[in-house]
Amino acid sequence: MKKRVLMVVAYDGTNYHGWQLQSNGVTIEGELNKHLTSLLGEDIRVAGASRTDAGVHALGNLAVFDTESRIPADKISYALNQRLPEDIRIQRSMEVEPDFHPRKRAMKKTYEYRITCAPFPIPTKRLYSYYTYRRPDLNAMKKAAGYFVGKHDFKSFCSAGNQTDTTVREIYALEVSQEGADIVIRIQGGGFLYNMVRIIAGTLLDVGTGRKKAEEIPCIIHSLRRENAGPTAPAHGLTLIGYNLDDIL
Amino acid sequence: MKKRVLMVVAYDGTNYHGWQLQSNGVTIEGELNKHLTSLLGEDIRVAGASRTDAGVHALGNLAVFDTESRIPADKISYALNQRLPEDIRIQRSMEVEPDFHPRKRAMKKTYEYRITCAPFPIPTKRLYSYYTYRRPDLNAMKKAAGYFVGKHDFKSFCSAGNQTDTTVREIYALEVSQEGADIVIRIQGGGFLYNMVRIIAGTLLDVGTGRKKAEEIPCIIHSLRRENAGPTAPAHGLTLIGYNLDDIL
Repeated sequence: MKKRVLMVVAYDGTNYHGWQLQSNGVTIEGELNKHLTSLLGEDIRVAGASRTDAGVHALGNLAVFDTESRIPADKISYALNQRLPEDIRIQRSMEVEPDFHPRKRAMKKTYEYRITCAPFPIPTKRLYSYYTYRRPDLNAMKKAAGYFVGKHDFKSFCSAGNQTDTTVREIYALEVSQEGADIVIRIQGGGFLYNMVRIIAGTLLDVGTGRKKAEEIPCIIHSLRRENAGPTAPAHGLTLIGYNLDDIL
Repeated sequence: MKKRVLMVVAYDGTNYHGWQLQSNGVTIEGELNKHLTSLLGEDIRVAGASRTDAGVHALGNLAVFDTESRIPADKISYALNQRLPEDIRIQRSMEVEPDFHPRKRAMKKTYEYRITCAPFPIPTKRLYSYYTYRRPDLNAMKKAAGYFVGKHDFKSFCSAGNQTDTTVREIYALEVSQEGADIVIRIQGGGFLYNMVRIIAGTLLDVGTGRKKAEEIPCIIHSLRRENAGPTAPAHGLTLIGYNLDDIL
């Protein structure tokens, strides 16, 4: 009896060449395929929800696969965690409808971009947060954030290499908050273009450091030109927090 | 003109065999000696304040050394950070009195022990927090914490290998708090015995999980027997937050 299994996958992206399978370089997808194949004795190929870049972290990426295994779907997480390296952990596993596909199903998705402001970098945060010695203006960043919310053509916030048909996306929420020495950008949307969250983070940082004004954001969006937005913020500050699974459970 | 320089040293302890110089194994002290010697062109040997164990992290350990260098003391941090690996960062450097020694000067010292409670480990926290799937009773831990505060003979909370004359120490403050999914034990004292903070953390966890009662803490302290206290909590959950430098600046 074939079944489709959905897994919530957390990982520290530091030691991986991103999610997507590569011929050279260890990837999250490659590790999942290898250890599922060895656990279940079948040739398993997972389909992932987000193809995160090298260095990007996740608390709740999604992967699905089909199996004939008699191991109950919700026990696969425990069995697989025994085999996976410590920097990849399955948070849960469950059976889903046979036609469920995480990239074809609309689900709210949340990312966090973390920035640490201190006179010198903090070693224990160096792999999980973008460091700057210059304290950005939090209020300016908050003001700028408001302009992104809603349905817009985000072509200005999209790297070359984006493969989607349309560059229109909807952002449901974008919050900038202080957490101790960190500034955290939390963004929720129905989907994001290639590098979109990192370019929004880089643009908000430009506003925070006075290189751009908050009021310029609508113009930058309307221009549909990548060069008008800020730089792509480094990968290691980004964490895919997760998907809203309420509507599929 | 010889001068004595004090440095505030932050590090991620993951990749080091602790602070103290070893013939085999890379240590924080060894890295500081090597890069200071190369930077200043003199044979430099630092004296550290805390000999943290392998895997323990620090935001503010202290090291002093003497130099004939004409580089201003407060600029040495910048120059040294150019040479040090990214997981060691000098937070500041400053000239101090020629007889200042960080282990002979009484200074308040603060440690944090971090515990993450979640159904499965969180990969990005695995090197900086002790993981448990079982949520400890925070109120019981807070109650137990109160018994430690004050001047006591902490022989029960000291590993074999402690080299100090007396096992009497004073704890000024011990707080247990919730920070998101983490429980943080913050302890401030005038000095600590070998493994004392990790044994206190292990004992508080025993109270949190019901293996010990909060009311037993005074008995455990008075017994002066290590076997009555809880286990030594793992090194990677511990961070030396720093020393109170107010009285020397």
